[in-house]
Formats: sequence, structure tokens, C-alpha cells
Amino acid sequence: MTAEALPQVPAPAAEGRRGREARRAARGQRAAVSVPYITRAIPLTEMLSEEGLSLIEGNAETLLQEIGIEFRDYPVALTRFKDAGCDVKAERVRFPKGLARKLCATAPAQYTQHARNPARSVVIGGNHTVFAPNYGSPFVHDLDKGRRYGTIEDFRNFVKLAYSSPYIHHSGGTVCEPVDLPVNKRHLEMVYAHMRFSDKPFMGSVTKPERAQDTVSMCEILFGKEFVQENTVCTSLINANSPLVWDATMLGAAETYALNNQACIMTPFILAGAMSPVGVAGTLTQVLAEVMAGTAFCQLARPGAPVIFGTFVSTLSMQSGAPTFGTPEAAFAIYGAAQLARRLKMPFRSGGSLCASKIPDAQAAYESAQTLVPTVLAGANFVLHAAGWLEGGLSASYEKFVMDFDQLGAMHVLAKGIDLSENGQSMEAFRQVEPGGHFLGCAHTQANFESAFYRSSLADNNSVEQWKEEGSKDEATRANALWKKMLSDYEAPPIDPGVDEALREFVEKRKAEMPDATY
Amino acid sequence: MTAEALPQVPAPAAEGRRGREARRAARGQRAAVSVPYITRAIPLTEMLSEEGLSLIEGNAETLLQEIGIEFRDYPVALTRFKDAGCDVKAERVRFPKGLARKLCATAPAQYTQHARNPARSVVIGGNHTVFAPNYGSPFVHDLDKGRRYGTIEDFRNFVKLAYSSPYIHHSGGTVCEPVDLPVNKRHLEMVYAHMRFSDKPFMGSVTKPERAQDTVSMCEILFGKEFVQENTVCTSLINANSPLVWDATMLGAAETYALNNQACIMTPFILAGAMSPVGVAGTLTQVLAEVMAGTAFCQLARPGAPVIFGTFVSTLSMQSGAPTFGTPEAAFAIYGAAQLARRLKMPFRSGGSLCASKIPDAQAAYESAQTLVPTVLAGANFVLHAAGWLEGGLSASYEKFVMDFDQLGAMHVLAKGIDLSENGQSMEAFRQVEPGGHFLGCAHTQANFESAFYRSSLADNNSVEQWKEEGSKDEATRANALWKKMLSDYEAPPIDPGVDEALREFVEKRKAEMPDATY
Repeated sequence: MTAEALPQVPAPAAEGRRGREARRAARGQRAAVSVPYITRAIPLTEMLSEEGLSLIEGNAETLLQEIGIEFRDYPVALTRFKDAGCDVKAERVRFPKGLARKLCATAPAQYTQHARNPARSVVIGGNHTVFAPNYGSPFVHDLDKGRRYGTIEDFRNFVKLAYSSPYIHHSGGTVCEPVDLPVNKRHLEMVYAHMRFSDKPFMGSVTKPERAQDTVSMCEILFGKEFVQENTVCTSLINANSPLVWDATMLGAAETYALNNQACIMTPFILAGAMSPVGVAGTLTQVLAEVMAGTAFCQLARPGAPVIFGTFVSTLSMQSGAPTFGTPEAAFAIYGAAQLARRLKMPFRSGGSLCASKIPDAQAAYESAQTLVPTVLAGANFVLHAAGWLEGGLSASYEKFVMDFDQLGAMHVLAKGIDLSENGQSMEAFRQVEPGGHFLGCAHTQANFESAFYRSSLADNNSVEQWKEEGSKDEATRANALWKKMLSDYEAPPIDPGVDEALREFVEKRKAEMPDATY
Repeated sequence: MTAEALPQVPAPAAEGRRGREARRAARGQRAAVSVPYITRAIPLTEMLSEEGLSLIEGNAETLLQEIGIEFRDYPVALTRFKDAGCDVKAERVRFPKGLARKLCATAPAQYTQHARNPARSVVIGGNHTVFAPNYGSPFVHDLDKGRRYGTIEDFRNFVKLAYSSPYIHHSGGTVCEPVDLPVNKRHLEMVYAHMRFSDKPFMGSVTKPERAQDTVSMCEILFGKEFVQENTVCTSLINANSPLVWDATMLGAAETYALNNQACIMTPFILAGAMSPVGVAGTLTQVLAEVMAGTAFCQLARPGAPVIFGTFVSTLSMQSGAPTFGTPEAAFAIYGAAQLARRLKMPFRSGGSLCASKIPDAQAAYESAQTLVPTVLAGANFVLHAAGWLEGGLSASYEKFVMDFDQLGAMHVLAKGIDLSENGQSMEAFRQVEPGGHFLGCAHTQANFESAFYRSSLADNNSVEQWKEEGSKDEATRANALWKKMLSDYEAPPIDPGVDEALREFVEKRKAEMPDATY
């Protein structure tokens, strides 16, 4: 374990000042602060040829024209699509060829999601990759207490861990489900936790339109109302009800965000073989059709609202019906959808560190790596579930959280590409070392000692003797010690006490307005 | 666990007949039998631009000209290089720019390594990828008995396991070191084990030139003397003594094989930062210079002898000096060297399923996947250490062996690319399923049920309840059961009894000629 895993997060200078003025001053310094997300210097890995892409795009247009997409229980969507030139029968919307793509054209190719600490703002799109943690798990898991329902304490812990990692750029959304809170009030404490215990960008609630509105209201308290209307401070996850359906809950949340200029990730969530055809090409066709229809919906609500082309594709065990992860077909879905998104000129979300394993063992690691590497090579711009995911997403694992951090760190180095500078070429080293000699002591090696190779925070590279002396620990056991140390070392980023008070006031007021509910 | 992991290996029809005639008949059927190695249909992932490649190639020429390569204790090499136009001082050989590359030009771009079962012959080079198991570990490891010195029984077990996997195409060489046999007699039992317990292609001994000769003699018994002189039946591993040295033992073995038209993998074995400069670009420069010099040596011995451009690069922990695996820099070395090899028009060997972990845990899996994926995407043609590697190669693990098999299986699917056939496009499925419906029961899904997605032999995708009911096993524990089942189901491939007798006679005669020795 090296010091690298536990970086000192510098407190931004401007945060000492109070209120709106301080926020503005801080934003003014944005250009001067280094951005922590990935900007790729390596080529894209593309699995589909121009021909393959055209074929899938043509099929998606056929799907949109002949079969169409249902927009359920959301009449205003039907009206808008009809006005835009679609054929609307009952809730089924059919798009003349080319129309859906045309309607997507107003979505920006990239956008900045602002963080309350301007040094943490991220650019989503282009050559950039932003990592966000696990999303949506009802259970949590650790080696001490095993598997259990998530609580708001777990939620806060995950927010703190994500804040403490240099390799997670975004605080995410429902990092685990705080099952100990009433369903209709969870979102308030979740959004508050992201705002208070991290200064990284975050996601909003989507489980009801009014919860999306609560998120926007809290953003207005944190960032100032005008700032929110002019800038994107929230990116939220909108799932299609695949195949070929968008439903009212998700559409309502998406419309709320779009009208407020906040970003939506329009994501078909697909277990291929059940919610899409068994083939990769067919699944990609459906993904493209659903994303274009969903994006068109957002653009009709507010042209120019930021939208991410989302894709979540897991394969199925056709024997048991269970979702499977880290398969080559799931990797193809990531590679292929990334290309389709680029041709739509939209930012792309997919991948992560996905696995079906119930524990942070070799299965978890193989499957996660087999998802994460394609994610990075394909050029995904926003990566949800980049850390912590276990058991097909049913559990958020403390150990896996920090194990994945380490893999994300390696991806930062990969994305930089091979250093071809004079120093990287190392010709002077050859002049310092005779054939048969060794390079450890030479001046070139000494000068590059610190930054030479990626240093894992969890890999044990010692001799077997030393490893035994230290207790013969596997990686998960070492990870158990690491997350505890990270939590115990955690210090909350500073926040304006007035802003904090206003946020707490809003949260308590909203809670008081509603009786507890389980939906 | 599915039936897929334990395929029925069909006994080749011709093997019922005896002797040379049967072998010829079998070879005649070659074209009719499907080849089991990978033929890639996906694009190559290339990390270096044309400019970067030219830079490294130019630097390698400078290295060869200014610093040169030492050929130690092997005077005939010096004479040949001098005659070819090199500047030779003592044992240092300096190459005028362009000469080493020119001397490599007679090495074939690809070659067929014949197996005694013609259906198992492999093409090495081009778009093909051949997986071979772990090589060179003095220790073996399993969950029951832990870590211990390898024996000939372990060796035979690994040969049997590799034979039983559909995803390993090549029986390899020193799959573990049979430490219970005298050093000077091990090679005889190792080569015999490959010949008897498998019918896949194999590697020969390189620890002394006369052991290489023993390998060739045994190949002549197995394949017939004329066949061996005209065809390649053996691919062997020749390591450079990096930096910039080739020594007498390796040169002697390489020359023996080259003179017999047998293939050598000329491989710089580099812990970067110790045996090469700390930078990737500098390391690639050295790799290219060493491989070109070693290949030139083989081509001067026998122009046209098959040679593989080999590369083994591990990074180092600059803190402890321990080798590290699965790092992004090690991946860059694979990607970059693959490109350099292709520009030399030579087959390429690198990568594998490498890791530093002492046990088959998450570290082992993360690092192995982070090595294997680049290996396949970079287009490596021959992949040693594709299964079983643990602890920086010090241990061959029974569990990891079969865990890696499963990953190799997934790579077979990846290499095929996305199916864009009419069936793959799945448009008929969309016409069978309404929006909001599901695809599990539709005709298209039913028709593609069996082959739809890669089926892991070891991943547990079941519910947590079922997994608990089955004993809460991690992947390594499931692998423990799988390798035992594979060994208990193992049936030796048939062999001509006369050939087998002649092989045993040769082995016993050679053993009787030498007193046991420890070197």
C-alpha cells in the first residue's frame, strides 16, 4: 500500500469566503486549477467498420419508422412528437426516416458539469472520461458484516470514499439505496450528502418528477439560482423501459431536468436476450433507436439541453436467465454504442466495473476488468458504476469500491499513452549502462524513479515469504483495511455555513411537508 | 459450470493405423479438419503512431550501431556477423544502420507448427493467435496442498489439463519445473510428456544445445526424420540476457533449432527499470534491437528458419525492486512491440495471463485480465503463459490454470467480432416482440439460444440465495473442483505403440548415458 491511495485533497482557497461572492470568486479561478478527469491521448478502439455502423443505423431508422417507440402516460410527449412530424397512434410514436437523428442535433457534443469546487468541474464528451461510482444497489457488502440492506450511513460512507479517491471524478447518485429512510424522503438526504460530504459533481433524483424538482431547488441553494439556469450542475440517469418504451416517471424527471438545462443520461437498460434480441447488432440497433427517441424528447422540451447517449447492456445466461457480466458480447455493446454515439455527436455513457460475483473475488475482478478496459478503450465519456459494483448491481461493496479505485488509477496512466519525449526515449540511459549491466542505479532511472510506473495501492508484489509474514492476505482483505483507513482519514470539504444551513432547512421543510411513504 | 468446459476431443480417425503411413494419411486430411487456434476478425488496437514507430526504430538502429550487442562465448556468431558486414570488437557486435533489419528479412512472416494430430497444427503469424500455458515455474500451487516444488507428476497434470481445454492450442514447454528429476534428464521426460499425454504442438528444451538436439531427435521419432527436416514441429523459447547480451547457452540452443528448421522465439526478458530503461519507449527500443540481433543470428545460421519476435516486459516496483504485472506500462510494451514486429513482418509473441499475486484472488484476476486483453487486442500471435501463471511466474497454479482457460474462451468470442449477418441483425425479432414485451420466448431467441452468449465455465451468476445454498464458494474454490474433474475425466490421445516404444527407448538410453547432474 502506498501513500498514493490516500492523496491530500487541497482545500480550494476561495472556500474560506462566504456565500455567493465566494462562489463567484471560486468560479473565476476555474481556468487556473487543473482538471482531474481523464483527457485521452490514446487512439480509440473501434470494433465496427463504417459499413457495420451504417447497417445498424439504417436498421434503427427502420425500427423507428415501422415499429416505433411508446411514450406511456405522458400526453405532452405525444403532442410534441406529432407536431414535430411523427406518426402518433395511441401512445406509439413512429418517426419518418431521419427525423429522430435530426431532432438530436441540438444536443451539445460536450458540456461542462460544474462542481461546487470549481477544480472538480468536469467536461463530459469529446476526449474526456469521467468516472462515477456504483449506482442503485439496495444492498451493501463488506467482509466484516457481510451482505445487508444499505442505510444512509452507508450512503455517506461511499460518498466520503469517492471524495477521497483521486481516480473518481464524480460523486455519482444513488451510490447505495438508503433503505432505512422513507422512500419519498431518501432523495433529499442523498442529494444533501453529495453536496455536503463531497465537492465533486453529482447526480439528481429521478424517481418522481417532484424529486427531480427538489434536486434542482437544492442546486439553486448551493450554486445560486441564476448560475443553475445558465449552467449544468447536475447529470441524472434516465432509463428506458426497454424494449422501445419510455415511461411517465422517467419522462417527467427528464423533462424537469431538461427544462432547467440540467443533463440527462438517456439509457436503455438492457439484459440482452430478454429486453432486446440475443444478437449484439440487434441490441445496438434497439439501443440507438431508444436513445434517439429519448434524446428527441429532451430536445423538444428544451433544445440544447445536455443529453448523454447512455447504454447499459448485460448479457444473459440463457440457461438460468441470470444476467452475466464481463462477457465479450457485453464488451461489443460498449465498443459499438460508443461509435454510434460519436456519429450522433453526443457524449457517451456506458461500462464501469461490472460483475455478477457475490464477493470481491477473482470472478469479480476478471469481470470488472473485462468491462472497464473496453469502457476506456472505447472512449466512454461518463462511466457510472466505475467502483463498488457487486452481484449484478444488487450490492455495493466497500472492499470492491477501493479495489476498483486502484484499477481506475491504472486507467489514468493508460489513457495518457506512451511517452515519446526525449526523456521517455531514454537514449541517455543506454549511454550510461554497458551491455549486461543494470539500469537501477543510472542517472536516468534515478531521475524518473517516482513517476516511472503506475503504483498500485492494493497489489502485493512482495516475496511469498514476506507476504506470509504479513498474514497471507488476499486483495479483498487488504482492501478491507484500506477503506477503513480512508474513512478514518476523511475530512469533509469546507462549505459555506449559510449555504449548509439553507440546504438543511430545505431538506427538513420538505420532509415535514410529506408523511412517510413507501413509494 | 457447463458442459462447454469439458469438450469431447475427437480421436483422429487415422490414428488407428500404425507408423509412418498412418501419419502421412493423417496429414493428408489436414485441410478437412477445423483449426482450433484463433483467427482474428477484429481490428488491431495500436497505441503508437507512424511517427512514434519511426522514432523507436531509428533509436534502435542507433543503439545497434553505437552501442551494439554482445554475443558471449560463441565465436562462430562473431565470425558470421563480421562476414555479414558488422563491426566486431571482442564480443561486441555493432551493426551498420539497416543491416540488422535486412538480415531479418529472410525470416518467414508466418509458419505452420505441425502437431502429431494434424487437426491440432497451428499457424503462427498473420491474423492468428495461439495460446500456450505457463512456462518455467519452479513451484506449483493448489488450494489443497499450497505452494511446493513442482514434480514430473505436476508437469504431466498440467499437460493433461492443457490438452483437455478447447481454448489452449499448444501444449507449451516447461509448464512447471519437475524438480524431482535430475536437471540434466528433466528435458527428456518433459518432451516425452508433451508427446504422449497431448497431441497438441509443443516446445523443446533450451537449457543446453545437446538438450535441444535431444528434442529434435525425439521429434524425428514422433514425426519421421524427413518430415522434421522439411517442416516445423517445435517452437522453443530463447531468452536474451538483457540488456544487449545474447549468451552461449541460448545461442547454442537457437542454432540447433534453426539448423533443423525448427522455430525459436527470440525474447528479451525484461524487468523494465532494471534490465532496460524505466521508460516504455526506451524499453521498446532495446527490445527491437535485441530481437533484430537475435533474429539475424538465426538467419545467418539458416536463412528462412522460423523466428518469432518475442517480448516479455514486466514493470518494477521502484520502491522494493519487485516485478509488477498488469500495469498500464506493461500493456504499452505489448501494444508497441506488436506494432514493431508487424513492421518487421515477423510473428509476435508476448503477453499472457500474468500476475504477481501469490494466490488465485482478485489481484491475480485483475492483473491477468489487464495483461490478456491487451495481448489479444494488440494481435499477439503466440501467447505463452496464457494459463496458470501466479506469483510473477514462480508458481504454476492448478486453480489459476482453469480460471484462465475460461478467460481464454471469452477471448475466442471477442476475436470473432460483432456478427453482422442477417441473423445477427435480428430484425425479425423486433417484428415478433411488441414494445414493452420480452424476447426470451420469441422464435429468433429460441433459434439462437445455444450460441447466443459466451458461457463461462466458472462464473457464478446465480442468486445470492442459491450461491449460499451451494456453499458460498469463491471462484478459486469452484476452480479447485473443476481441475480435479478435468483430470479425472482425462483420456490420453491415442499414439502408435511402436512410436511410443521408440520414444521410451530413446529417453531411457539417453538417461543411462549420463550420470545425474544438478546443472
